[in-house]
Amino acid sequence: MVNRTDTPAAASVAVMERQGGFADRDAWTVTGTCRMERALALIGTRSAMVLLREVFFGATRFEDLVNRSGLSEAVAAGRLKELVGHGVLTRRPYQEPGSRTRQEYVLTDLGGRLFPVLVSLMEWGELLEDDHDTGVELIHKQCGSTIDTEIRCGNDHPVALGDTAVRMRTETPRTQ
Amino acid sequence: MVNRTDTPAAASVAVMERQGGFADRDAWTVTGTCRMERALALIGTRSAMVLLREVFFGATRFEDLVNRSGLSEAVAAGRLKELVGHGVLTRRPYQEPGSRTRQEYVLTDLGGRLFPVLVSLMEWGELLEDDHDTGVELIHKQCGSTIDTEIRCGNDHPVALGDTAVRMRTETPRTQ
Repeated sequence: MVNRTDTPAAASVAVMERQGGFADRDAWTVTGTCRMERALALIGTRSAMVLLREVFFGATRFEDLVNRSGLSEAVAAGRLKELVGHGVLTRRPYQEPGSRTRQEYVLTDLGGRLFPVLVSLMEWGELLEDDHDTGVELIHKQCGSTIDTEIRCGNDHPVALGDTAVRMRTETPRTQ
Repeated sequence: MVNRTDTPAAASVAVMERQGGFADRDAWTVTGTCRMERALALIGTRSAMVLLREVFFGATRFEDLVNRSGLSEAVAAGRLKELVGHGVLTRRPYQEPGSRTRQEYVLTDLGGRLFPVLVSLMEWGELLEDDHDTGVELIHKQCGSTIDTEIRCGNDHPVALGDTAVRMRTETPRTQ
């Protein structure tokens, strides 16, 4: 019923296949159950992500986090408090000789599991400009080779976007 | 020189090792070259990501994108225009019988390469609540198994956060 007029400029890529009841997308809303939105509610700001970047790079102390993120002290303090409240970071006391005990910020296990988010964002940002000789790169310590993200299924097949389907979980056959 | 007082609540995970000149983190800034920030400047808002989610799920038309994202028409229109301007989406004309030609929104190759970002965010959001029977799941069409992100290096080793190092690219040995 639809007359498409494709032009070379309108090249598009295959998206996900909707399966089961989810094929009728108007019958379902993901509002309230969307994991991506839940994640973004906690870490979906530039300030949260630049602080997390610096924590991933090894910064722990408030003054280092402020200097390296380029955020103001007020913004950094507010965001760090939120990240601690959400269980992404935790505070750990430290004391330098002659100084009072202070708190540093370290990743929790939950925070560490943002690793693929950080890598996939860096990887995508890499596509945006042709300056591949500058900036930092992430490598595998043991072999020195650069790292990237791959999507794989439980049977260890590499999975492209066009090979992906989306369905409601309540329709998943329960065989176990 | 630092006296750490670790408590059980302050458990932390290994982060990246800084190599070469980047070990002296104060000597380097990633400001202006950070790929992650560059990515976030384009897609680092909730509205951009919920629109992209719906495009990945197969929506193309403005009214569907508005309904399924839950955004207002004004916010959706502004964000879609930006995503087209950044080359993440492209407009494609379509015409239904008896109607004027309209534009739908489809992923470009660049947009499609956000697939690991979307999957890694959904995966992390999954950790935040214990409601694993609700919402949608992403599966490999060919085998039906659920998908997730893995970090691998160029030598195909799976790489954990603690096995990762970060270094400046200008220090990369140029052997080829």
